[in-house]
Amino acid sequence: MGEFELIQRCFAEAGRKRTDVAIGIGDDGAVLQVREGCDLVITTDSMVEGIHFFPDVDPRSLGHKLVAVNVSDLAAMGAEPCWLSLALTLPKVDEAWLTAFAEGLSETADYYNCQLIGGDTTRGPLSLTMIAKGVVPKGKAITRAGAQNGDYLYVTGTLGDAALGLQLVQNKVEISKKHRAHILQRFHYPTARVALGQALRNIASSAMDVSDGLAGDLLHILRRSKVGVVVDVNKLPMSQALKDSCDAEQALKYALSGGEDYELLFTVPENRRGSLEVLLSPYGVPVTCIGRITGAVGKLEFKQGEQPFVYQHQGFEHF
Amino acid sequence: MGEFELIQRCFAEAGRKRTDVAIGIGDDGAVLQVREGCDLVITTDSMVEGIHFFPDVDPRSLGHKLVAVNVSDLAAMGAEPCWLSLALTLPKVDEAWLTAFAEGLSETADYYNCQLIGGDTTRGPLSLTMIAKGVVPKGKAITRAGAQNGDYLYVTGTLGDAALGLQLVQNKVEISKKHRAHILQRFHYPTARVALGQALRNIASSAMDVSDGLAGDLLHILRRSKVGVVVDVNKLPMSQALKDSCDAEQALKYALSGGEDYELLFTVPENRRGSLEVLLSPYGVPVTCIGRITGAVGKLEFKQGEQPFVYQHQGFEHF
Repeated sequence: MGEFELIQRCFAEAGRKRTDVAIGIGDDGAVLQVREGCDLVITTDSMVEGIHFFPDVDPRSLGHKLVAVNVSDLAAMGAEPCWLSLALTLPKVDEAWLTAFAEGLSETADYYNCQLIGGDTTRGPLSLTMIAKGVVPKGKAITRAGAQNGDYLYVTGTLGDAALGLQLVQNKVEISKKHRAHILQRFHYPTARVALGQALRNIASSAMDVSDGLAGDLLHILRRSKVGVVVDVNKLPMSQALKDSCDAEQALKYALSGGEDYELLFTVPENRRGSLEVLLSPYGVPVTCIGRITGAVGKLEFKQGEQPFVYQHQGFEHF
Repeated sequence: MGEFELIQRCFAEAGRKRTDVAIGIGDDGAVLQVREGCDLVITTDSMVEGIHFFPDVDPRSLGHKLVAVNVSDLAAMGAEPCWLSLALTLPKVDEAWLTAFAEGLSETADYYNCQLIGGDTTRGPLSLTMIAKGVVPKGKAITRAGAQNGDYLYVTGTLGDAALGLQLVQNKVEISKKHRAHILQRFHYPTARVALGQALRNIASSAMDVSDGLAGDLLHILRRSKVGVVVDVNKLPMSQALKDSCDAEQALKYALSGGEDYELLFTVPENRRGSLEVLLSPYGVPVTCIGRITGAVGKLEFKQGEQPFVYQHQGFEHF
């Protein structure tokens, strides 16, 4: 079997087979039936060896993560994930690597009800670009632009675990046996908050996912919504694993500036706050109010309880 | 201005501003309004430095070509191009290079009525992935799978010019001053046959674009349609520039195996052949009948007039 056939075979049936795929892999393009009454949502995320992942990463987890981080962007828009495309640049064809990568990708795509519908494969330095497509009822996409003065700021799950995980895989920290699995899981196998994102469509005034670190990502909402925010660092949700694995100051740094948690950050107007807990309880994902939107355009303020808190953010810079 | 801001500024307004873009660049994803009664068509094409282009290529032509080759895939499906995403991996931020690349991309996107609606920028070895999205009336996409025994095989424009252009930019051939501009234009600035592709929706039984060379690309139609074909090499359309620049045997090689012409290859049933010339005449693109589909599944035969013609194809291999 040639290299080309091997690649084809690995990805031919990846993900969940969907009935709205009229033409999938194998033609000049894919043909997709977008549900009536829905808008199309598209996101793109690239992962480059040496920048986003280490050369020795488990290819299965890489396949998982590529799907999850893309689907997380759809979740943050309140969209339902449907279709994935993959642009794969490979220095060589390593059957074991490729098979494991494709399995991780396919399992995770299946989990999120997504079908791989096309892409491109080329030779070159290892780099992965995924394009995720989803649908959302017309006009119901949640953007970064709708936060208003007085809205409450929430985040799902816990923050900082993936940042600690990154240190762990680099052997820069030690973590007790009890917590290692959780932290590695959070780093290698992030969960996109898909169901919760859709539940937020009629609740949140703005939303995004936390990929580059809370403090940096918040600035996007501030800029696009033309608002400010005050965050109470005492409220930041942290896992027991994180709290047990480093001192409080370091844990706070991870929670504020650590990337790749893929939790949802969203704002809720006061009048919809009452229904929040009831509406979100079926999803089994904790949500925590961590601050409040202000009218001070572009201003990101921290407090610790009632005290001002000074923090110099150093987030992940793509450039 | 930081590197990130520079990149943002270069691409913020790229292409044609479209009213069906609800949310463009700057959120977790783009939100697009797919016209009712239409299917969505998606294609992905990557271009990697050293594989698909030379390091010293004019960035403006690179921006053009990236758009054109993607739009060409949409054209081959009979789709109307609408939206583009760009995943850009750059080793460094070179303002002059980036500005010229973005201008070439933007001009060509504008020409094809496409808006750049998002993407991702990362640091790494130079590589460009574009995702083009278009629409086609429901069920009207032209695939590679519809060719039937007895259908006539057509190609648009001329073949082999881009292959000669590739030799020219590598200084492997000499071309008279009279023809240089045409050949370079064909190599650096290919034209996607968009209007013609749409006109073929009710005529062609199958279609694809010629990107890797006629002989290799034809195999895709044969496999997907489960048919064979006989091609008369005497009928292959060649430009005067190609015919004047090399001997007949070499010209034929370029026409048969040269990639990157981005012409459309399509099949037409006998009963629709009569309307072909009338229907396609407004588009000003010559179409030439070069062969006929047979029932010999997977068999690619060549003849030269009435004589059999033996040809060993060596096409572009992505892997």
